[in-house]
Amino acid sequence: MSYRPELSNATRPPTVAVASVNEKGERLETPIAAEHPLTLYLDKRELVTLMTLGQWPEALAIGYLRNQGLVRSLADIRSVQVDWEVDSCAVTTSASVQDLEERLAKRTVTTGCGQGTVFGNLMTEIDAIALASERILTEETYYRLMDNVRRYDTVYKAAGAVHGCALAKDEQILLFVEDVGRHNAVDAIAGRMWLDGIDGADKIFYTTGRLTSEMVIKCAQMGIPFLVSRSGLTQMGYDIARRVGITMVGRATGRHYLLFTGEQRFLRAAQTPVPAA
Amino acid sequence: MSYRPELSNATRPPTVAVASVNEKGERLETPIAAEHPLTLYLDKRELVTLMTLGQWPEALAIGYLRNQGLVRSLADIRSVQVDWEVDSCAVTTSASVQDLEERLAKRTVTTGCGQGTVFGNLMTEIDAIALASERILTEETYYRLMDNVRRYDTVYKAAGAVHGCALAKDEQILLFVEDVGRHNAVDAIAGRMWLDGIDGADKIFYTTGRLTSEMVIKCAQMGIPFLVSRSGLTQMGYDIARRVGITMVGRATGRHYLLFTGEQRFLRAAQTPVPAA
Repeated sequence: MSYRPELSNATRPPTVAVASVNEKGERLETPIAAEHPLTLYLDKRELVTLMTLGQWPEALAIGYLRNQGLVRSLADIRSVQVDWEVDSCAVTTSASVQDLEERLAKRTVTTGCGQGTVFGNLMTEIDAIALASERILTEETYYRLMDNVRRYDTVYKAAGAVHGCALAKDEQILLFVEDVGRHNAVDAIAGRMWLDGIDGADKIFYTTGRLTSEMVIKCAQMGIPFLVSRSGLTQMGYDIARRVGITMVGRATGRHYLLFTGEQRFLRAAQTPVPAA
Repeated sequence: MSYRPELSNATRPPTVAVASVNEKGERLETPIAAEHPLTLYLDKRELVTLMTLGQWPEALAIGYLRNQGLVRSLADIRSVQVDWEVDSCAVTTSASVQDLEERLAKRTVTTGCGQGTVFGNLMTEIDAIALASERILTEETYYRLMDNVRRYDTVYKAAGAVHGCALAKDEQILLFVEDVGRHNAVDAIAGRMWLDGIDGADKIFYTTGRLTSEMVIKCAQMGIPFLVSRSGLTQMGYDIARRVGITMVGRATGRHYLLFTGEQRFLRAAQTPVPAA
């Protein structure tokens, strides 16, 4: 049995119903995405306030600390306690986190980036990442995974206004997390990977969100060699994907996709020749 | 002639072309959204790094300072100089900004929110906002505006991966800004409103992005009584919209819409009775 910190289990309902009037003048009870502020305290020090759907608050807190490089392993975390009475999450570590002051100082300089929080040392860290080069994703498996994603029962289908992320092994969806911010959804996946002892090397990461710099960096940090999105990509997302050598697929809708980087890991189905008339 | 600070004019192309392979094995030159880091300096003090498309960097810087409450009027800004050689934007103020230290101290506490940067004093400020109560938007004008939005030539149509915001008077689009983050698009609109002396009280704000707390707060801060989105809304967006009394329409696609708050400003077309058979 692998180590688990003491965790609260403070999940909240993902939607609430509000009144609206549609174009026909009908009054409707409309489900909308829940959104709660969650202020994170690391060893009693206030770090950040995350706006979240609240389905996986403990995993979100752990994944945030992981992806921001503030905690190096799950074993460093003793306890994660969410208390919605005061919208707070208290994380206590077993050993005082090394060089935290220095890391936080760096953070305040580059924070507030349009993509969410980016730490000053992320870009230097990504050059140290080596993604598994021998993994292959076949087009058949890719299409089966996309079918599974499409059929998945989601908050998005009910209420919109959320982004979803999935972690998959071949076509099988292992984790699916939605949140009001796509960064939160990724962070919650990262937290659950630590909690469940899931390694990224043979996994595929799917997101409904755009492939921005931060999305690519986080995926690479989790050691995942495949990144797929329904949406498009930005220039920095592309540049970083090339730099880390990740296999990145964008505009994944129905049978259509665009493979942008890391072609060597993606095995297209053999082209069947057009039969003679 | 109203006051204008000294401005650089450092707009950049919104798309770049990269190579991709589609599901048919065809190699394509694919336009993707440009994305540049832009580090903002206020009187030589480093504030933030914004990831931006770079079409309106000066307006973005001004609108960011405006929406964060760091500068109170355009007259306080002497100069805005963008230099893409070093990805920086230097803003100099005419008078040293009052209580800047205090405002920045508040910022570091609540920063990194899933929705972008939120300052600690925003929520208290919104209760002081009074939106024009006598303005009316008719359903006919609303539909004409939606038609104009749909026909607008956008970076999104070419490259995806951006959010768009429009400022309109009745059905006429006055400003249209796209950026890789929806917060940046709103901020650039706010900057251009200051630069062009545009008041918000008789305007409509349209966004392709979701109606989150921050989107509603910024719209209210700009004094705009109408907020329309193609997307859905979150619980905090809804709560704040009710609190400030803004007229908020979501899920605006084709002929369909949902009116969530501020019904009294939205005048539906008279219902034509169903003719007898």
